[in-house]
Amino acid sequence: MSVTFQVFRGSAEGKIVADKVTRTLEHNEVFVETLVSGMCGTDVHYLKAGLVLGHEGVGIVKAAGPSVTTVKVGDRVGFGYTHAICGHCDNCTNGWDQYCRTVKLYGSSDFDNGTFSSGAVWDANSVYIIPEGYESVYAAPLVCAGATVWSVLTKFGIQSTDRVAVLGIGGLGHLAIKLASALGYHVVALSSSEAKRQEAKEYGASEYHVFRSGQAPKDMEPIKHLILTGSADIDYSTLIPMMDTLSSIYPLTVTSEPSNITTLSLVTKGIRIQGSMVGSRPVIRSLLDFAAKKDIRPTIETFPLTAEGIETAMQKLRDGKMRYRGVLVKE
Amino acid sequence: MSVTFQVFRGSAEGKIVADKVTRTLEHNEVFVETLVSGMCGTDVHYLKAGLVLGHEGVGIVKAAGPSVTTVKVGDRVGFGYTHAICGHCDNCTNGWDQYCRTVKLYGSSDFDNGTFSSGAVWDANSVYIIPEGYESVYAAPLVCAGATVWSVLTKFGIQSTDRVAVLGIGGLGHLAIKLASALGYHVVALSSSEAKRQEAKEYGASEYHVFRSGQAPKDMEPIKHLILTGSADIDYSTLIPMMDTLSSIYPLTVTSEPSNITTLSLVTKGIRIQGSMVGSRPVIRSLLDFAAKKDIRPTIETFPLTAEGIETAMQKLRDGKMRYRGVLVKE
Repeated sequence: MSVTFQVFRGSAEGKIVADKVTRTLEHNEVFVETLVSGMCGTDVHYLKAGLVLGHEGVGIVKAAGPSVTTVKVGDRVGFGYTHAICGHCDNCTNGWDQYCRTVKLYGSSDFDNGTFSSGAVWDANSVYIIPEGYESVYAAPLVCAGATVWSVLTKFGIQSTDRVAVLGIGGLGHLAIKLASALGYHVVALSSSEAKRQEAKEYGASEYHVFRSGQAPKDMEPIKHLILTGSADIDYSTLIPMMDTLSSIYPLTVTSEPSNITTLSLVTKGIRIQGSMVGSRPVIRSLLDFAAKKDIRPTIETFPLTAEGIETAMQKLRDGKMRYRGVLVKE
Repeated sequence: MSVTFQVFRGSAEGKIVADKVTRTLEHNEVFVETLVSGMCGTDVHYLKAGLVLGHEGVGIVKAAGPSVTTVKVGDRVGFGYTHAICGHCDNCTNGWDQYCRTVKLYGSSDFDNGTFSSGAVWDANSVYIIPEGYESVYAAPLVCAGATVWSVLTKFGIQSTDRVAVLGIGGLGHLAIKLASALGYHVVALSSSEAKRQEAKEYGASEYHVFRSGQAPKDMEPIKHLILTGSADIDYSTLIPMMDTLSSIYPLTVTSEPSNITTLSLVTKGIRIQGSMVGSRPVIRSLLDFAAKKDIRPTIETFPLTAEGIETAMQKLRDGKMRYRGVLVKE
């Protein structure tokens, strides 16, 4: 069975270009008609790579290959990072399928599918039923931004009474505050100015402190878990004195330049720096379930799912003015 | 009750100086007559600080304060890093008493006690009964060097079939190989030359590879846990490609200079860098028990426990020629 759909790619000049793709549906694939798509910093990063952008989608299953049993035509599903993963290697079978040993997440497997599109062809095992009543515009950002913080919040041993700090209040950070608070953690918001104090408190932060490189907040209790979502070239020499013994730092916004991390400081306090990338399929499913039951919604701005809409949203994201996740909506 | 004993301090000029100390035994303290003491790189580091050196001791309890119930006069005990810790804070009660919130391990609590001495006054709760038949010269290095690697090997989720690599074969590294092998891990030894291949295999390594900055071993399977015991200014850009997904690096030899760690590389592979300092009291006790039962012995060189003996041993350690732990023995 063959399907044709519209996609939006980035061009070498950094523009958004519409294109048509025709694909044959394989045995275990579904064709999903895109309703909405979140926009991620990674889309800006991959803008000039020529691939179809977008990996935070929600849509309706419109066709299914003959082997598909896990979803059916008419289901509303999330789809995103994982086009197709093996499902059989040690990482896939241990709940860490974002580190599948066979299929890499991004750019290697499929340049013609993405959520900036009228539709996409996806492996049926890598789409997620959206809980009834939970709106698509809120579900979409959970598939990547939400999963990224949810994986940290639920997979690395954070305990209920721990002090969990979130540095940076943006697409990831605002979700981290909402979700961490809903999980019962004591949430400490760290931001570069006073501007977001009120919002952070509304999202569930118990404390709010201004943090700048070289200027750690004074009189703050030590932090047990610190989630970094702000600038990637963060000053670790300011962070480390804020950390508790036996604590963890999770850098979610990252850089390929060396960070000023000193191993002595890690040892004397027993600190770990834990890398973590997006979330596995079980992590995404548990997040969608949790968000629906607790009615937790990302704070979003919507744009039309058109070339022009994408460019407008991308500019806002680049300017650091998105409050807090851009979501593209089919017109 | 008052006790007088001989101690060896480092001087501002970097010499070893004998001194006499008189102390009153507090209610829960014991006086331990030193039989042997291991020598650690930390002793070289603190040489000019004026404190009594040495923190890997084994000796005989010669006197006990009126509240002491856990050991008795005549017991052979290990004593070392922990002079006295609170025993009541969250870290002490959760098996991580080396991060006690009240009493710091080194240099802050007691400048007059150390294991480079004829004896020392110690809190009775921070000495360790040495299993019968296990020789004092082997037990001493376990109290710090052994505890440091044992804590990593047993407290951070290493699993039986994991590939555990040890970089650097010295005081810590040779013990890490012996202990990791005895725990059933697949041990990969990494050294800067071919010189120690035979020894490493005898200690239990299943693989041996030459590693130099910029020259990662070729055709090596990825590493799940990497224990760094060699040069502290290790090149992380050579290490990271050797690591498996969801793997861990434990820097035991450390520096206060920034390391060239890039957070992007940690995230894409899900790598953690875990700081860990010596071992808690339960860790040391379980190690002494394990080493005695499995008859695992540090590889040592002995020197007289005199000012001259200490200086000779220290020079050998500085020259990188110790094979592999220096142990000072009472004449």
